[in-house]
Amino acid sequence: MLPTAEAERSYQPTERVALPNHVLTPGLVNLHTHAAMTLLRGLADDLPLMSWLKDHVWPAESRHVSAEFVYDGTLLACAEMLRGGVTCFSEMYFFPEAAARAALAAGMRAALGIIAFEFPTAYAADANDYITKGLAARDELKEEPLLSFCMAPHAPYTVSDKTFTKIVTIAEELDLPIHTHLHETKAEIEESLARHKVRPIARLGALGVLGPRLIAAHAVHLTDAEIDTLARHGASVAHCPSSNLKLASGLARVAAMTARGVNVGLGTDGAASNNRLDLLEEMRLAALLAKAVANDAQAMPAHQAIAAATLHGARALGLEAVIGSLLPGKSADLCAVSFEEPELSPCYDPASHLVYAAGRAQVSHVWVAGEIRLERGKLVGFDNRSLNNRVLLWQNKIAAETKA
Amino acid sequence: MLPTAEAERSYQPTERVALPNHVLTPGLVNLHTHAAMTLLRGLADDLPLMSWLKDHVWPAESRHVSAEFVYDGTLLACAEMLRGGVTCFSEMYFFPEAAARAALAAGMRAALGIIAFEFPTAYAADANDYITKGLAARDELKEEPLLSFCMAPHAPYTVSDKTFTKIVTIAEELDLPIHTHLHETKAEIEESLARHKVRPIARLGALGVLGPRLIAAHAVHLTDAEIDTLARHGASVAHCPSSNLKLASGLARVAAMTARGVNVGLGTDGAASNNRLDLLEEMRLAALLAKAVANDAQAMPAHQAIAAATLHGARALGLEAVIGSLLPGKSADLCAVSFEEPELSPCYDPASHLVYAAGRAQVSHVWVAGEIRLERGKLVGFDNRSLNNRVLLWQNKIAAETKA
Repeated sequence: MLPTAEAERSYQPTERVALPNHVLTPGLVNLHTHAAMTLLRGLADDLPLMSWLKDHVWPAESRHVSAEFVYDGTLLACAEMLRGGVTCFSEMYFFPEAAARAALAAGMRAALGIIAFEFPTAYAADANDYITKGLAARDELKEEPLLSFCMAPHAPYTVSDKTFTKIVTIAEELDLPIHTHLHETKAEIEESLARHKVRPIARLGALGVLGPRLIAAHAVHLTDAEIDTLARHGASVAHCPSSNLKLASGLARVAAMTARGVNVGLGTDGAASNNRLDLLEEMRLAALLAKAVANDAQAMPAHQAIAAATLHGARALGLEAVIGSLLPGKSADLCAVSFEEPELSPCYDPASHLVYAAGRAQVSHVWVAGEIRLERGKLVGFDNRSLNNRVLLWQNKIAAETKA
Repeated sequence: MLPTAEAERSYQPTERVALPNHVLTPGLVNLHTHAAMTLLRGLADDLPLMSWLKDHVWPAESRHVSAEFVYDGTLLACAEMLRGGVTCFSEMYFFPEAAARAALAAGMRAALGIIAFEFPTAYAADANDYITKGLAARDELKEEPLLSFCMAPHAPYTVSDKTFTKIVTIAEELDLPIHTHLHETKAEIEESLARHKVRPIARLGALGVLGPRLIAAHAVHLTDAEIDTLARHGASVAHCPSSNLKLASGLARVAAMTARGVNVGLGTDGAASNNRLDLLEEMRLAALLAKAVANDAQAMPAHQAIAAATLHGARALGLEAVIGSLLPGKSADLCAVSFEEPELSPCYDPASHLVYAAGRAQVSHVWVAGEIRLERGKLVGFDNRSLNNRVLLWQNKIAAETKA
């Protein structure tokens, strides 16, 4: 991006796009997702977390997740996210190299998690194997201008002290963020107290995980002292309001976090627990929910919600110099929202409408790094039919095996 | 509506509409709104309730509200609601006859509140005057097949015992529902305790307001005993999750109400406190929020949320025999939702997708009493340009006077 006058002096336009009655925003940043889980969207709902995971999601994953599953599911996620104004997503799932290839095919920016678990899956055998494979993917793809990488230890209850320590060393060496689930449920905290005698944040603090690299996904259950700890360490939170409600995880104290200086971005989580990858929806819900939780109608006002969906997400990913706001020198990751429909009429305050009244249906144009990806609501350079056919194949396969 | 075989025998179709990959639902019922407040959409947000009301909404209303304001604002609301699958709305505002004319112009079903306050406005001088004018509107319009009427005392803090008593008598005589704000905020309850020595529900109980006629809008703050009281009286609640969050009113205990047998429908409230008249959004939010509030991921499952948005609203309005479900003999108030887009793909459970993944952008066709009102996302027989011009006039007028 550059100032208009300088652009006029330095370049000949091949095309001019004028969008009267639109608002142009920075491309939205989805700070926490498991993109390929679109293929499990709506497979199991309205269930307690443990039954949802153990009886439905994990069995389906162990049957189906492969590089192909991740590629197809992530491509579907990219289609949905681009149509909703999201230009960058922070991803945590198996086969990150397949997710990376899908993001590149879609022309989207992605921060890929180098995921780590202790237990084996179709993707890797143990924590070292996950990390080795993730680092190999990074070595192969790190020069791609749209891609960046995070270390992504899954969660305190699935990753050992030893692995966390190793991950901190690698993150410092390679200058990468550390993206992990943290304090999502009360059960997670109770299990930590039983096994480690401390709450997860205290444990991760002792292991050196807390710091400006940390992206704590969910962060639903925090004491005031823990909020201060995150703020003091310059850590970020990926707030996922839909998912926190749907799994009955609880009500995150976003206004308190923001007031105490925690950098709060927004995430959709995966489509199996949301069930949409719609950051405008998360923005609205975050702004509404913060007010009731804080018992204060002034909590998370519109401009703060917009910052959470854009600049704060970019900052968490270490991409603040490149994306997250409309400033000369930053990349042209843009989202145009049409204000022409009755739903956004009349208009006294565009920021209010963006947060409280607009929906992804009003997103008309999206550019990633200056390349147009959505034009008048239609994906550009996207083979919708082929994607649709592959998704139907997965649907039939997964539905058949779920019945069996 | 009638069974297909009977339709084939008895009628020659002038047109057949086939919608593969769509779901057909009963038209959605918006159980609580102030439709004309669309003209104040986004005028004042992120403010505490009393400043929002006293410094912004009431001054704007006292300057601008007239029969013309209500007609134009309600027509805009009808456009928005029809585009989102709403076929019937329960309305509470000044100049109900103007709202009625707008609903008829839009071809929408409406249950119009015969509103009552004690204080004077541009519409009426005192409670008797409000009621007289509302009843006159009903006398004039009661044969319109799309219209019905409710008694609509505004709230316990704006209506006297005497007026409530009179309203109960009229409601019984004319067999009308009683639509009122109830237990919306803690302040309302505290004020009632100070003035009347009892909480509002107890006061209304003594005045004979509780019963199957009652539609209690909001009902955020209820004790277990009050929930049982509402259930025992066969009363209905119009749950308004977006508005309850946005004004920081609190978290309604919907799962507890449903479990104890209260009939719970859904409302958008007015566009000044939401800021959208989008019942699919309220349905999703109600289902998500109920889970976190009840600490139970099984609370308000998808089918229950759909019932709240359709049949339960119809029941509250005394219209259960006419609308709210797809049954032979009921009116063809229908909403078709397209499942063709990537946002609703793959599909394992259409009910889950309707609640958790679909948005109003997927509403493709709407019929009210068998007449098509929305076709492939476009309003039918609606003068969009003329409406848009009138809304812009209001916008300029209201914005100018707000600045001054």
